[in-house]
Amino acid sequence: MLRHLLRPNDAKIVMLVLDGLGGIRSAEFPRTALEQARTPNMDSVAAAGLCGRSLPISHGITPGSGPAHLALFGYDPLAPEHDIGRGVIEVTGAGFRLKDNDIAIRGNFATVDGKGVLTDRRAGRLPHEESVRVCALLQENIGDIDGVEVIVMPVMEYRFGVVLRGKGLSPAVEETDPQLTGKKPLQPVALDKASERTRDIIIEFIKRAEKALANEPKANALLLRGISRMPALEPFGERYGLEAAAIASYPLYRGIAGLCGMKVIETGSSVEEEFETLRSAYSGHDFFFIHIKKTDSYGEDGNLGGKARIIEEVDARLSMILDLEPDVLIITGDHSTPCAMKSHSWHPVPFVINSTVCGRDDTEEFSESGCDRGALGVFPATKIMELALANAGKLKKHGA
Amino acid sequence: MLRHLLRPNDAKIVMLVLDGLGGIRSAEFPRTALEQARTPNMDSVAAAGLCGRSLPISHGITPGSGPAHLALFGYDPLAPEHDIGRGVIEVTGAGFRLKDNDIAIRGNFATVDGKGVLTDRRAGRLPHEESVRVCALLQENIGDIDGVEVIVMPVMEYRFGVVLRGKGLSPAVEETDPQLTGKKPLQPVALDKASERTRDIIIEFIKRAEKALANEPKANALLLRGISRMPALEPFGERYGLEAAAIASYPLYRGIAGLCGMKVIETGSSVEEEFETLRSAYSGHDFFFIHIKKTDSYGEDGNLGGKARIIEEVDARLSMILDLEPDVLIITGDHSTPCAMKSHSWHPVPFVINSTVCGRDDTEEFSESGCDRGALGVFPATKIMELALANAGKLKKHGA
Repeated sequence: MLRHLLRPNDAKIVMLVLDGLGGIRSAEFPRTALEQARTPNMDSVAAAGLCGRSLPISHGITPGSGPAHLALFGYDPLAPEHDIGRGVIEVTGAGFRLKDNDIAIRGNFATVDGKGVLTDRRAGRLPHEESVRVCALLQENIGDIDGVEVIVMPVMEYRFGVVLRGKGLSPAVEETDPQLTGKKPLQPVALDKASERTRDIIIEFIKRAEKALANEPKANALLLRGISRMPALEPFGERYGLEAAAIASYPLYRGIAGLCGMKVIETGSSVEEEFETLRSAYSGHDFFFIHIKKTDSYGEDGNLGGKARIIEEVDARLSMILDLEPDVLIITGDHSTPCAMKSHSWHPVPFVINSTVCGRDDTEEFSESGCDRGALGVFPATKIMELALANAGKLKKHGA
Repeated sequence: MLRHLLRPNDAKIVMLVLDGLGGIRSAEFPRTALEQARTPNMDSVAAAGLCGRSLPISHGITPGSGPAHLALFGYDPLAPEHDIGRGVIEVTGAGFRLKDNDIAIRGNFATVDGKGVLTDRRAGRLPHEESVRVCALLQENIGDIDGVEVIVMPVMEYRFGVVLRGKGLSPAVEETDPQLTGKKPLQPVALDKASERTRDIIIEFIKRAEKALANEPKANALLLRGISRMPALEPFGERYGLEAAAIASYPLYRGIAGLCGMKVIETGSSVEEEFETLRSAYSGHDFFFIHIKKTDSYGEDGNLGGKARIIEEVDARLSMILDLEPDVLIITGDHSTPCAMKSHSWHPVPFVINSTVCGRDDTEEFSESGCDRGALGVFPATKIMELALANAGKLKKHGA
């Protein structure tokens, strides 16, 4: 229903996503990180804008990073055709351009003892440089398998990606990670007839890889997960009539943005570097997704001070975005990661949108409690893109 | 989609339902019963919990008790397969175990004059003991009809249930209650070809019953309503991975809970007896539905003082629940029954959920206006179960 309403113009939209932004108050943490952080700039955006709480999937449903970002980008995260496998996210995030029928796999380098029993599922958190070397070793030694091209790539530290490219492949093969040390890696199991050939190729791949890695001190085994194929996502640019750019330092988020068809721009890992990248890319695009990872990481660690500090750092540098005078600015998270829970959670996420036509509510503080009083109330995250387009003047009236 | 997210644990959930809890302010009643009642304990639960307004069906749609409870239990009350006939609710509530093809009918004993014209649709509110005797009289005199077994059971006062058990029955037969005195009971009408045999059996049943009741001073006629068959409800226990118990004194609510597959526990009719039943049953289950009827009854009577008194009684005894330290406590209603309207209404219902991970909003009072400011906002009652499970730690993350 949306596409016929599109009315392209030059207005620019910036969506700033602080991963896992939302928190909850608890006995241990009487204030959330966002409540504790001094955020004068975000508070000004909230005071001049419209606030609310965005609901990534549904009340009570805790989203993973993939579904949470799909929701932010306006794709129904529960639709089966939007189910993105972890392997696809991983290799796309590493910058690899998947073809439609490629099989993508997420791998961990691991350590096994003399009997093939896992002693470390992450090969002692193998450093990235080591991973680059070991991936090259694999690439050199494995070659094609039964006419299928095998591409191995480093991703981050002990994590790598594998792509199988060839005819007659199908991704319904189970993971080989037993999730526990003290066990052997699992044998790949095909879940349907069509995936048996893929299973056989994966078995042969593991065999050749273990031979090539036999003398590695740490990375002498591998665990394969998230065996998957490209989902059929309507390209973001066509869907919304936007030239979209993604600025994210972590592979997973670069991956999801890339799968949606956004242009993924190289950037650094600090807030300042990401915001600087926005500045450089600003003239060439009209939609910007900027992703800050560390709020989520500190939330997972239960480190309220750390999470608050990152929020303060973003706030302190916010002028780098405000000075660009985007027509629409959105600040929100993909989901909540309360320090009180040390995990993702279902709680709706603080949200603010600011434009000359957003309207104003009485919220004067960008915080959970402030957003609870916002005029948008609790609303589905999948509606954020429509709100963004409307505020940018990019949507016509529906009906006469 | 929910079922694959279930992660069973030992956490216990208590859902306390005050029937018809919600009210509205009006010229006559400047405060609702919940606003007028002194409820220090519920206020504490609200202050430490998350509040909102649960919407049983949809804005503007007033639910009956059946749909309202289905929504609370997480079943879409508008799905045709969840349409529960009143006859089914009535006989199930009376403790009868229906088989899939049984036809269940809700009956009223009534009084007619010499010409067969209704003078009292409730047979002078026939006392329960009388009803038991009259039902036995019917059971004795009617016997099988055309190979169909007929079971008559007392329910409560003038209300009784009839079950037709046999082959080739179908429930599309209209009610015989003209809803007004001064008229004769209606003849049953079959709404489709398949139900014509059932209609004929009902006609014969009425004929034999009227003969058997001819000498009764009050209960000399009957009105049949809610002719229906078992709905196909996914069992609550499997749906949510819970061992559920229902504590309710009124047959209808016991019936609905039983149809969902909850274990219906014997209890008394006072708040204290119901809460005592919870205490006794607490170790054997992990989900408890406790139903308080009288808030609705007083609402229907427009008796604000009475409704407030029942709310205060529940509040005064709430420590019986709080002392059990349930992991998740929900207090809400199934629908609103404003004294200002003397009927069920569509207004969203005050709701609070309390757990260590519920989050907190600024609501400090459990009331309509307090819940209007709650962080949950107005949300679908069908989401309550997912919220409950999430707060109990019984749901995994969706997606990676």
